[in-house]
Amino acid sequence: MIVEIISVGTEILLGNIVNTNANYLAKKCADLGLNHYYQVSVGDNEERLEAAIKLALTRSDILILTGGLGPTKDDLTKEVTARVCGKALILDNATKEYIRELFALRHVTTISENNWKQAQIIEGSRVIKNDNGTAPGLIVPVERNKHIILLPGPPNELIPMFEKDVLPFLKGLEPNILHSVMVKICGIGESMAETMIQDLIDNQSNPTIAPYAKTGEVHFRITARAQRKEDCEAIIEPVIKELKQRFGNHIYSLKDEDNLEDVVVNLLIQNNLTVSTAESCTGGLISSRLINVSGASKVFNEGFITYSNEAKAKYLSVPEEILKTYGAVSKETAYEMAKGVMKTTSSDTSIVITGIAGPTGGTKEKPVGLIYVGIGFKEDISVFECNFYGNRNKIRDNSVIFALNKLRLKLIDYFGEMQ
Amino acid sequence: MIVEIISVGTEILLGNIVNTNANYLAKKCADLGLNHYYQVSVGDNEERLEAAIKLALTRSDILILTGGLGPTKDDLTKEVTARVCGKALILDNATKEYIRELFALRHVTTISENNWKQAQIIEGSRVIKNDNGTAPGLIVPVERNKHIILLPGPPNELIPMFEKDVLPFLKGLEPNILHSVMVKICGIGESMAETMIQDLIDNQSNPTIAPYAKTGEVHFRITARAQRKEDCEAIIEPVIKELKQRFGNHIYSLKDEDNLEDVVVNLLIQNNLTVSTAESCTGGLISSRLINVSGASKVFNEGFITYSNEAKAKYLSVPEEILKTYGAVSKETAYEMAKGVMKTTSSDTSIVITGIAGPTGGTKEKPVGLIYVGIGFKEDISVFECNFYGNRNKIRDNSVIFALNKLRLKLIDYFGEMQ
Repeated sequence: MIVEIISVGTEILLGNIVNTNANYLAKKCADLGLNHYYQVSVGDNEERLEAAIKLALTRSDILILTGGLGPTKDDLTKEVTARVCGKALILDNATKEYIRELFALRHVTTISENNWKQAQIIEGSRVIKNDNGTAPGLIVPVERNKHIILLPGPPNELIPMFEKDVLPFLKGLEPNILHSVMVKICGIGESMAETMIQDLIDNQSNPTIAPYAKTGEVHFRITARAQRKEDCEAIIEPVIKELKQRFGNHIYSLKDEDNLEDVVVNLLIQNNLTVSTAESCTGGLISSRLINVSGASKVFNEGFITYSNEAKAKYLSVPEEILKTYGAVSKETAYEMAKGVMKTTSSDTSIVITGIAGPTGGTKEKPVGLIYVGIGFKEDISVFECNFYGNRNKIRDNSVIFALNKLRLKLIDYFGEMQ
Repeated sequence: MIVEIISVGTEILLGNIVNTNANYLAKKCADLGLNHYYQVSVGDNEERLEAAIKLALTRSDILILTGGLGPTKDDLTKEVTARVCGKALILDNATKEYIRELFALRHVTTISENNWKQAQIIEGSRVIKNDNGTAPGLIVPVERNKHIILLPGPPNELIPMFEKDVLPFLKGLEPNILHSVMVKICGIGESMAETMIQDLIDNQSNPTIAPYAKTGEVHFRITARAQRKEDCEAIIEPVIKELKQRFGNHIYSLKDEDNLEDVVVNLLIQNNLTVSTAESCTGGLISSRLINVSGASKVFNEGFITYSNEAKAKYLSVPEEILKTYGAVSKETAYEMAKGVMKTTSSDTSIVITGIAGPTGGTKEKPVGLIYVGIGFKEDISVFECNFYGNRNKIRDNSVIFALNKLRLKLIDYFGEMQ
């Protein structure tokens, strides 16, 4: 089965956006074991889009088109696809109703006429509901074993629609299934992690082992191909065991849907602990990640963005002589912040960060990238000094990952792995 | 002059890397005023690469191929290009000498045979020196006004080579330049914004008007084509004037590099004001965006993540009877939060958010997506009720944009537009 990804949008050709959709879809199709030989980007132009679809149909079995499903005149993907397939566009009442509801929710009473264009579907196609926008997706059967799949361009709409509806559909087309487990590792660099399992990577066939680097993390996807899920799991299991042996508790999860903050929040919930945060240069990134976890309200007490020395003294009881003697960016201040925020908020644990994320503000002694992380658990307070490199965002993101991981490791030291 | 970008590399099709080269090249070509209708990605496969080059030559004048110029067997771009053009590969002595020097610099004495493959060039082509690697680039004349340009895949090699050699070459081919201005709008939905200027879009030719939707924002890129930058600006100016007339202070910036928080922070700096934040469901997203702006330390006093009622009472002086009577998610509480946080922190302005971002926690009276935003400026406190839809992240992002924009509008009301 050969898949081809066609990205529609003049903004891609003008270089205004990086085509991350093609990358996301390519990865997913590779995971499914689908062959994928061409990716094409084409503008919002009828004639050229038509040529791209026609060519793709001669060489690929599944076309995934993204973009051009919106309400404006520029949005032509559905119209052109219908014409190439020789099918009509018809009004889908369920979609029309859904669009009406969305506008009602937002108290919009005058709905401009072009919005109803989005309720048109290609006859004989299956609607993919869009929970995050007004443009539905479509799965259009073209002929035996040939399909065109249309998805909207915004990643926050495309990704959930792909996961929920397109993925199961594509799985159904292929008799062997692929099943994979993601081994998520934090605290070891990418090339080091790969070197540690080079022998396994070199000898892989079924299962395969594919590394993915993320800021501050490395993920290994272990993928097996077999007829049933249980067979896949049996193939994967010994590899997981081996990775656990080699990486120990640097592995923070084996679940696709888990990220580091999920694990931290769940460890807190499980051990009946509360947490508070105090941040300077990360300015709320840690708290917002923790609070984004479902159930965080049970464990998250309070968060402080203490950007100034005054706030560090006032809310976190950092002694003024500590700030004066060692400065706001120092291990001594980080220690006092971690201690103070637990006291102020009566929390069991704390995560605090003080540092210099740049681009300016560094000195020879305290360069940009110098970050102190404080982790508190009752009387036990640890401070870590880090030197990150890269731009402001990269330094901030690395700091957040580092800090969350250190609280995770401390909790595991005391309470053992999560159940 | 039509340019086509062909990215060569199986790693793109497997989703292992995001194709940032295509984005970089697209942007550069757009700046040069070159037309660009197709981007293609193809794997390290002789037959399919040949097909892609042949097709591109029928529809484009300049082909830019990236990747596949290295020393390994997989690297086929030069060989296939030579064959399609009916030209021979010949040894380039200068390149050979350069490769030898590079290895000597690294103290490598035995150079594996496959490295000399990189010293082969297509006859009649111009060599683009690679200061950061061993694979040179090539500019291959195909026929009158048709060229194929080959560049290596690693961005740290490709970008300097493009800037130094390819850019001047392409400039020589095209007398006109493109210049554009981005009009950034917040507070009006995409389809509404487009409807408001449909007449302008319908009649566009030079300049062109292209809309881009972002979460909570709409951007219009106005692009003119002329021989000099000043001529472009003169073409763009009346359109900008017209958009200002129609959208008023919904336009928050005309600068590519500005985002909403930049404008808010700069308005605060300019008017010598400080700000503090209090957030529940957005959990620090507003503070982290503000603090990410260079210079934010001058204006950002303190941030609170008051997830619990206790914290709202303790740090923001929200009266307990207000919380009890109206609940944490209410306009009354938002009002008290906006007032309280200014008092606690002695700030001039405040941004506060309380709401239900979901996915659970909603009721019939207070459904998921109900958000109250409080904006304070000294005695003047405004509260806004919003009903956002979508997943938790989308609701949070929309809330943040909405809130930042409301503070911007309030400041403009008092002090006028930013200088």
